[in-house]
Amino acid sequence: MPVISVTLLPGYPDEAQARLVTHLSAAARSVIPASEAGTTVFIHEASAYRRDGRVHAQGASALPAASEVVRAFLDAVGRRDGDAAARWMAPDFEMVFPGGQVMRRLEELSAWAATRYCTITKTIERMDESWQGDATLVFCSGTLAGRWLDGTAFEGVRFMDRFELQAGLIRRQAVWNDLGEARPRA
Amino acid sequence: MPVISVTLLPGYPDEAQARLVTHLSAAARSVIPASEAGTTVFIHEASAYRRDGRVHAQGASALPAASEVVRAFLDAVGRRDGDAAARWMAPDFEMVFPGGQVMRRLEELSAWAATRYCTITKTIERMDESWQGDATLVFCSGTLAGRWLDGTAFEGVRFMDRFELQAGLIRRQAVWNDLGEARPRA
Amino acid sequence: MPVISVTLLPGYPDEAQARLVTHLSAAARSVIPASEAGTTVFIHEASAYRRDGRVHAQGASALPAASEVVRAFLDAVGRRDGDAAARWMAPDFEMVFPGGQVMRRLEELSAWAATRYCTITKTIERMDESWQGDATLVFCSGTLAGRWLDGTAFEGVRFMDRFELQAGLIRRQAVWNDLGEARPRA
Amino acid sequence: MPVISVTLLPGYPDEAQARLVTHLSAAARSVIPASEAGTTVFIHEASAYRRDGRVHAQGASALPAASEVVRAFLDAVGRRDGDAAARWMAPDFEMVFPGGQVMRRLEELSAWAATRYCTITKTIERMDESWQGDATLVFCSGTLAGRWLDGTAFEGVRFMDRFELQAGLIRRQAVWNDLGEARPRA
Amino acid sequence: MPVISVTLLPGYPDEAQARLVTHLSAAARSVIPASEAGTTVFIHEASAYRRDGRVHAQGASALPAASEVVRAFLDAVGRRDGDAAARWMAPDFEMVFPGGQVMRRLEELSAWAATRYCTITKTIERMDESWQGDATLVFCSGTLAGRWLDGTAFEGVRFMDRFELQAGLIRRQAVWNDLGEARPRA
Amino acid sequence: MPVISVTLLPGYPDEAQARLVTHLSAAARSVIPASEAGTTVFIHEASAYRRDGRVHAQGASALPAASEVVRAFLDAVGRRDGDAAARWMAPDFEMVFPGGQVMRRLEELSAWAATRYCTITKTIERMDESWQGDATLVFCSGTLAGRWLDGTAFEGVRFMDRFELQAGLIRRQAVWNDLGEARPRA
Repeated sequence: MPVISVTLLPGYPDEAQARLVTHLSAAARSVIPASEAGTTVFIHEASAYRRDGRVHAQGASALPAASEVVRAFLDAVGRRDGDAAARWMAPDFEMVFPGGQVMRRLEELSAWAATRYCTITKTIERMDESWQGDATLVFCSGTLAGRWLDGTAFEGVRFMDRFELQAGLIRRQAVWNDLGEARPRA
Repeated sequence: MPVISVTLLPGYPDEAQARLVTHLSAAARSVIPASEAGTTVFIHEASAYRRDGRVHAQGASALPAASEVVRAFLDAVGRRDGDAAARWMAPDFEMVFPGGQVMRRLEELSAWAATRYCTITKTIERMDESWQGDATLVFCSGTLAGRWLDGTAFEGVRFMDRFELQAGLIRRQAVWNDLGEARPRA
Repeated sequence: MPVISVTLLPGYPDEAQARLVTHLSAAARSVIPASEAGTTVFIHEASAYRRDGRVHAQGASALPAASEVVRAFLDAVGRRDGDAAARWMAPDFEMVFPGGQVMRRLEELSAWAATRYCTITKTIERMDESWQGDATLVFCSGTLAGRWLDGTAFEGVRFMDRFELQAGLIRRQAVWNDLGEARPRA
Repeated sequence: MPVISVTLLPGYPDEAQARLVTHLSAAARSVIPASEAGTTVFIHEASAYRRDGRVHAQGASALPAASEVVRAFLDAVGRRDGDAAARWMAPDFEMVFPGGQVMRRLEELSAWAATRYCTITKTIERMDESWQGDATLVFCSGTLAGRWLDGTAFEGVRFMDRFELQAGLIRRQAVWNDLGEARPRA
Repeated sequence: MPVISVTLLPGYPDEAQARLVTHLSAAARSVIPASEAGTTVFIHEASAYRRDGRVHAQGASALPAASEVVRAFLDAVGRRDGDAAARWMAPDFEMVFPGGQVMRRLEELSAWAATRYCTITKTIERMDESWQGDATLVFCSGTLAGRWLDGTAFEGVRFMDRFELQAGLIRRQAVWNDLGEARPRA
Repeated sequence: MPVISVTLLPGYPDEAQARLVTHLSAAARSVIPASEAGTTVFIHEASAYRRDGRVHAQGASALPAASEVVRAFLDAVGRRDGDAAARWMAPDFEMVFPGGQVMRRLEELSAWAATRYCTITKTIERMDESWQGDATLVFCSGTLAGRWLDGTAFEGVRFMDRFELQAGLIRRQAVWNDLGEARPRA
């Protein structure tokens, strides 16, 4: 039943406007138990806009879609393209891995991983975004497959990664998975 | 810079209206890089409303805050109050635990846990909501403390729980944690 | 797809507000081929309103529903209650009957009818309103039954009455029917 | 006093937008006794629009003006251009004439008319639209002139046609007139 | 032609709302050459409002009408009621009189005036407000009458006072008048 | 806290739209004690607009900025360019000078001034506009410098001019200054 009208400065691309109305529809329905059919969101572009003593005529750039940023980052990491991955990492980027390992560079991650398994690949099952205003979180879950250090294979090992993005860059990745459950015990 | 106007039927409680404008502000800022100060959301209550051939005069009940539902559920589970916990469980409730254990009843969980540790307590560090329209996810993370079956203590073990809620009830809980990393090896 | 927002002064009764959103929905759909489900209309009551140099705080009375006025008038005429009928007649009320008969008073009508049939009753099948801004027309159609002057019965004779209302009163009634087709020829 | 704001997808032609604001103004004034000067209607084109889970960027085609459709149909019938007339007839087109004659094809009409008069022409005095959401009715009234089968002339014979349109096509024409009153009796 | 919609938190008194729509109408017409009849302003009270990270439910107090403040101040000064006048004076109140005399207290003014005339009264012809956002100016003009120090009378001497108000208090009064033209020369 | 939405016909230049939102912001803050940061004004251009029985598609010309008109007029007067000055004077233009001198033509002013001083220049310190709907007033204040008839110089002499504009032309100028205080006494 909610009707949501957004007034924006002109200039945001169609993709961002479509994303905006979709996010707002989802956010409204997290509080109001309205059906999709009963939830209307639209954008009006203002012809002139004044706030805080200034008149604006053009919108800023939209933020990139957080899930897309994470996907691009994971792709780059998966193909060991550190330069590509670095484009999505904030200056204070930090990773936390199972057992509480904290690392800041992808090289550290490679060294640490080499003590645990030979190869690993991620199959992403879902990406869920949590919109928090100043930051957006992306929760990425699915399964891991690969080979242990002794050469035996594993697959279907559950994982959950949480990414914290600010201004379109990843500041923090936290990882949980079942490798500790699955790994062969000495 | 976005100004968001919501038209609602009258009758939603103040708490739900405050939650709604807060969710919408966060959702808008996931796309438009506007500051808090530059993001305005307000609600107008309609005096009469017609859609789909019907005239409405009163809003439905608001959904409960998903994080609050999860907190109440976890409290009940923590104090082993199955009846209280059940009030928040959907008929098709399902839990998935590390290693891929699937359970549907809290008694199953107790039996399974008894094979892994004597006692356990959760310290919640954060709750993050993902609004998805038909469903809301709550990602609850923090640390576990307790005693292993051999009586030795553990603490600071990272966990991440994902809850899927629909219509205010929990349909699915998925759990990841570092207990597999932390637990003493035979 | 149209979303229609109406700003009104407060004070219009619920019935009038429901009628207003229903009329506006129908009017919009006469131009935009939107479904009922895709047509949203709501009313906001203004807290203060200024136009033409005056600040208003309270709405005027709503107009009565034109079809209801016509129904009440026809009921009164049907039971020959001239006083009740007169309450719905504008000072310049006029009737035009088949053959172009123009009359202004119900007594004239009775006298004229007496030259054509003994008794007559109307079965209303539908009432259709035409909203014209300054005036509203009501088109009332159905069938006539009764007895001719020679006592033979008739029924199922089609009729169509057009009523022109202004400010809630009937200014003009124009009548078409098939009595000329049906009536026994000498 | 009503101020009516319509949000539409972009792309509707100026003529349709002008028709829409005119219909809405008339519809509002059928309930609220506001003057023309006090009735304001405007259209905002949305930059993006989401309902029922879809984001739209372009409006549909507008419906044709119902009175124009009827006028074009009557013109075609008047000049016995069956092909032109057929363009405005819905597949389930049906006509009902005085006495309750039901016909579905213009050829049937011609044959029936040939038993009643030699020639006939319509002078339209007014067209009134009734907007009903799914359908629009057009009430067309005026006078008939022509020659009876015996060659004598008639003129000024009142008629009323009701047309029911859906999706811009005429589904049903119902005719009332005073020919039964006027026609020479054997 | 402008239609101006204001969204306010609830709680502002009717007088302030009427003043607000009147000021907005005047401000709009300082740019858009619309007639009074073509200028519409209304207020919607929001049911909930969020900006800058806070949800508000109640409006602040309105500012007093600046002209009324000036009138009350001048009345108090005219009847030499210093306490009443002081209620409208900001802590940094300052007066500037013809010749550039700067004074801060009414007693100084009395002393200075005593060197120029015996008695004086103001007849206010008009009050004009200049709305500047942080401040409101009131321009008060009319004529002065009284007696010179030599006892001869004067009247019809033009004056213009400019008052600067902030937060409802007068911070500065600047005075111009024709007393220098009118006063008898030695 | 006020959010002000203006619906305008398209076609007003950016400068006029910026001026409009600035004037409206100032006007709102003359009643509601909101900060600049908490005051939002934007313009939506309507795609179609109907009032008073007419559909409009294009806005009128905006009024010129009143302060700019006054500045251009004073510039022209200052450089004794009567033709340029006349472009800003309404047909019923009138000036009132200290002592109540009423003049209608700039030549009269020159003649009168020649009896009071040899040369004069204006240093404008501020321009304040008072928006009154049908008219806009501009209050222009600052200091005068020049030479008296006896050749002695003066400077820093306070002045205040009030201009009344209608439809972009100056109808009346009223002048107050301290020349009477400053001028050497015989």
